[in-house]
Amino acid sequence: MELPEKAQVRFRARYSETDQMGIVYHANYLPWFEMARTELCAVRGVRYRDIEEQDHLLLTVVEAHCRYIAPAHYDDEVIAEARLAFSHSRMIGFAYEIRNAATSQLLVTGETKHVFITPDGRPARVPRKYFDLFAIPAPVGRPADD
Amino acid sequence: MELPEKAQVRFRARYSETDQMGIVYHANYLPWFEMARTELCAVRGVRYRDIEEQDHLLLTVVEAHCRYIAPAHYDDEVIAEARLAFSHSRMIGFAYEIRNAATSQLLVTGETKHVFITPDGRPARVPRKYFDLFAIPAPVGRPADD
Amino acid sequence: MELPEKAQVRFRARYSETDQMGIVYHANYLPWFEMARTELCAVRGVRYRDIEEQDHLLLTVVEAHCRYIAPAHYDDEVIAEARLAFSHSRMIGFAYEIRNAATSQLLVTGETKHVFITPDGRPARVPRKYFDLFAIPAPVGRPADD
Amino acid sequence: MELPEKAQVRFRARYSETDQMGIVYHANYLPWFEMARTELCAVRGVRYRDIEEQDHLLLTVVEAHCRYIAPAHYDDEVIAEARLAFSHSRMIGFAYEIRNAATSQLLVTGETKHVFITPDGRPARVPRKYFDLFAIPAPVGRPADD
Repeated sequence: MELPEKAQVRFRARYSETDQMGIVYHANYLPWFEMARTELCAVRGVRYRDIEEQDHLLLTVVEAHCRYIAPAHYDDEVIAEARLAFSHSRMIGFAYEIRNAATSQLLVTGETKHVFITPDGRPARVPRKYFDLFAIPAPVGRPADD
Repeated sequence: MELPEKAQVRFRARYSETDQMGIVYHANYLPWFEMARTELCAVRGVRYRDIEEQDHLLLTVVEAHCRYIAPAHYDDEVIAEARLAFSHSRMIGFAYEIRNAATSQLLVTGETKHVFITPDGRPARVPRKYFDLFAIPAPVGRPADD
Repeated sequence: MELPEKAQVRFRARYSETDQMGIVYHANYLPWFEMARTELCAVRGVRYRDIEEQDHLLLTVVEAHCRYIAPAHYDDEVIAEARLAFSHSRMIGFAYEIRNAATSQLLVTGETKHVFITPDGRPARVPRKYFDLFAIPAPVGRPADD
Repeated sequence: MELPEKAQVRFRARYSETDQMGIVYHANYLPWFEMARTELCAVRGVRYRDIEEQDHLLLTVVEAHCRYIAPAHYDDEVIAEARLAFSHSRMIGFAYEIRNAATSQLLVTGETKHVFITPDGRPARVPRKYFDLFAIPAPVGRPADD
């Protein structure tokens, strides 16, 4: 079965997300990336909250990159899209596009990189049960150990 | 020994805290209240973080009230002041004033009410060791039990 | 024609809206109130953004009050509902309820009060064209003047 | 006269800046970068707010990049430092370091790139009066025109 490659969330920019420049403040696109990332996990079969609650693992951000092409304004309907950019057993990368839903204009693109850590902050391998979720190839000739 | 009745923090309004009205967004004064509340605990001898980390108790907000008199603008230096408004063994109330540091103009006033809860969400009495911190009178004829 | 008395928005709590208590941070319900308020204006026929852009008036918050009954958690689907609480030609009040969409549990209630101001900060009467929007009775025996 | 190459701001991480992972949410470092950038402009002789208010120019972010090395926690005292990374007449780059003030541990590094735009969103050259501020070499054999 093929899992979806992309996921989208659609919502309106909030007044609270604007700044005195009259546009959405640049830091506020990172939560939009995160919403699309949560949705991508969901459509690929895993609730992100379950990873934290059941597996006691945290998928922490180690890098984030945003390019701001055109601004979103208050009450604009926007679409945030996430896709897996790359993945291996120790790091997962996502790529994002934010578009104006009415015009399809591309507003912001970005990437984030994530590693799994334990609650006390030590790096962890991606558990085997999430290899499908994150499109990590199963190692050849090595039995599942997670 | 008399503990300080009030505490102040002094800082500048951030660009990220403004909205497209050109003033600090109204929700963003609540974190300022919280900064003053943290400082009030500190000057009264308790690091708020220790309550969470050492006592495994959370001081959760059950009510918040703000009156907006005049706006803060980006880069304005402001003073946030907190004081204990009332307290008993099950609830603690704080009152706040936000002022422009340059002009002393009163910008925002507010109150918050808090109760202690355990990590699983059940209400808890204020531990005896925090009676001084929160100016709760020790009960008459009853030995310390916390 | 009867205008709708209430409006709702439905969305998921964001990871960015949580705090280290593991629940949505108390200040973050105020933007949820605002989203419901924007929607209430929309279903009553006015885009709030047009008031700012076309009439050069700002509907500024003068008071906000929240009661926190139960917390929202990350990824919970919630419903924020707004209704007009009161209105007259100089002030408008809204009331809010936040509920968990899955269980209908009431999480937060609140009220905000607003006045119109001009861009330079002077108070203004609600323009006559918005009397229907805000359910303000037309004054008897007095011609429309706004 | 040599202008300072770097500027620092020192403050405590707010409870509101944490997320349910128990650390400062990754988007919340961008406002810290901005606070250090505001301070760098100030120590180099220009209040950033005056650029917006007096020159009616906006210094908009076109790119942001963060690397997360170690987390900041609630109530940690941190130091955010900004320096000019590069500049020419159409673009300005800043680089940032966030450190734990008590331990000097490096927590986050990042860069932002900015262009000037007019209030209606058209790109603008850096005004000549800000060449010193942004360390832009004056063009040879060309009279000042801004």
